[in-house]
Amino acid sequence: MRQRIYNLISTSILYLIFVSFSVAQSAFNVVPLGVKGGGAEGNLSAYMIAPVNSQAYVCLDGGTVRQGIEVAVANGAFAVTADQVSRSFIKGFLISHAHLDHVSGMLTNAPEDTAKFIYAFPKCLEIIKNHYFNWESWPNFGSEGVNPLKKYTYKPLSEGQDIPLENTEMTLKTFSLSHGNPYEGAAFLIQTHGKQALYFGDTGPDEVEKSDKLQKVWETIAPLIKAKTLTGIFLEASYPNEQPDNKLFGHLTPNWIMKEMEKLAVLAGKENMRDLKLIITHIKPTGQNEVIIKGQLSANNALGLQIIYPEQGTAFEL
Amino acid sequence: MRQRIYNLISTSILYLIFVSFSVAQSAFNVVPLGVKGGGAEGNLSAYMIAPVNSQAYVCLDGGTVRQGIEVAVANGAFAVTADQVSRSFIKGFLISHAHLDHVSGMLTNAPEDTAKFIYAFPKCLEIIKNHYFNWESWPNFGSEGVNPLKKYTYKPLSEGQDIPLENTEMTLKTFSLSHGNPYEGAAFLIQTHGKQALYFGDTGPDEVEKSDKLQKVWETIAPLIKAKTLTGIFLEASYPNEQPDNKLFGHLTPNWIMKEMEKLAVLAGKENMRDLKLIITHIKPTGQNEVIIKGQLSANNALGLQIIYPEQGTAFEL
Repeated sequence: MRQRIYNLISTSILYLIFVSFSVAQSAFNVVPLGVKGGGAEGNLSAYMIAPVNSQAYVCLDGGTVRQGIEVAVANGAFAVTADQVSRSFIKGFLISHAHLDHVSGMLTNAPEDTAKFIYAFPKCLEIIKNHYFNWESWPNFGSEGVNPLKKYTYKPLSEGQDIPLENTEMTLKTFSLSHGNPYEGAAFLIQTHGKQALYFGDTGPDEVEKSDKLQKVWETIAPLIKAKTLTGIFLEASYPNEQPDNKLFGHLTPNWIMKEMEKLAVLAGKENMRDLKLIITHIKPTGQNEVIIKGQLSANNALGLQIIYPEQGTAFEL
Repeated sequence: MRQRIYNLISTSILYLIFVSFSVAQSAFNVVPLGVKGGGAEGNLSAYMIAPVNSQAYVCLDGGTVRQGIEVAVANGAFAVTADQVSRSFIKGFLISHAHLDHVSGMLTNAPEDTAKFIYAFPKCLEIIKNHYFNWESWPNFGSEGVNPLKKYTYKPLSEGQDIPLENTEMTLKTFSLSHGNPYEGAAFLIQTHGKQALYFGDTGPDEVEKSDKLQKVWETIAPLIKAKTLTGIFLEASYPNEQPDNKLFGHLTPNWIMKEMEKLAVLAGKENMRDLKLIITHIKPTGQNEVIIKGQLSANNALGLQIIYPEQGTAFEL
């Protein structure tokens, strides 16, 4: 009997050590506010991210904001109201490109919002300034342009530069992407306490885009994968494999994702890819595409990547 | 016993006659796809409307499209798939003004959509053309501008003119509104088989807008109320009464709605207002505003209007 109690206690202690270790390993808390591409108005690309144990988030893209926060609050991801999350916890938006499905939530929520930063490449900020915050499409909540209300301060990004994300414990390095050449997108490498997470906005494969932009990203991040400090990659899978290359419109399929991951594996070492979390974003929910895309990714995962399908309002750690 | 059976049968017959009569009285079927103002991305202004027993609808504004149709299908409002409703049943969009919360669903759903018409005032079409369908904010699915894909054909409207709504059994007369002077909005009078429904986009009260645009609408529709052919008015209540007049931004409160309804009653006759259905749209869901606005409308309804609060995906007849 004494032996059984002893075993139980030692097992419990080992379990607690294991759990503590796992928790300590996590660097980021992610709250998906919207996870789909296409016409799912209430569930479009937007991911809150902060260091674990911090409430100072940035939002990666801003397709759906309010509805995602409401679902997250209902799920217990936050212990405060949706208004407080939106107004106090989000310190800035990082916008990968200015297509409507990546900014509409940020724009429509601006009237009720507090002062924040918008980080984006200069061309993207120009579109936001000229075509959204212009008093015709929407009041000008930006910091520039016609009669600006100066709620959102534009922070133009330069490729490769490391900059602090204001009012957070994170820094940012940005990569240029090709989203239907010559349309420019962006990938964001978020860094905190020696760990990183990499978020891709919409992008096509290098071969289709006639580009080397993804290859350049792989070259930069391969050392981080080898060093086991890159916690996860958010990458888009808009269409199933059946979508013809000449109708990709600057997007990826499961096949193209895995081809690009193979290129990364050449640089980072196949043996290091098995620990990598691949968070699949931007699935266009037409017909049965969600099921088809998930099946194709699963069937084509020779590298043994840890594939994650984020859900609106369900927080996870990286 | 025989007497009770006789009573039961005659009561049933009377009930059936009553029901048939009521059904025969309805002119329109309405399926709200989105009912709120502000940042509720998945529930923004959009109302499908068709003559009863017709499947040829137009959509009044296009804030939320896909998510609303999905809820409607789940509620049994349609016996076909969401894709079929969107692609086959909606013949055109009537856009009251180009603010993002009235068009974002139409825009983001365009890639999966079929050819349709967009009816709007020329200034509104210019904003859609210059700032949305321009390959920077979104691919150009319009019929004009840079490299148009020509999926949506623009139909510029003239105030007061009666025009057919293509591929439907309805006609349209449009009124100009003031939505934060000098920003122009529109109201749509939809007509079928001698009956009408009147939909207002966003508008401020004449007194605050320094305008007579609402008064002009009341003068035109008063005879229709007297003739009992106007089945309902969709009107916005964005803010509660506590919102100061200098912060209305071209919107209405319960107090201002009822002041405008009093002006209409002067022209149409108070005794005719009790049959009028007032469908309240565009409540901004900040804090407790929904409850407050409903309470204020109810407390201030001396005219005895039939106030209806539409719900996303729940069809009703007018």
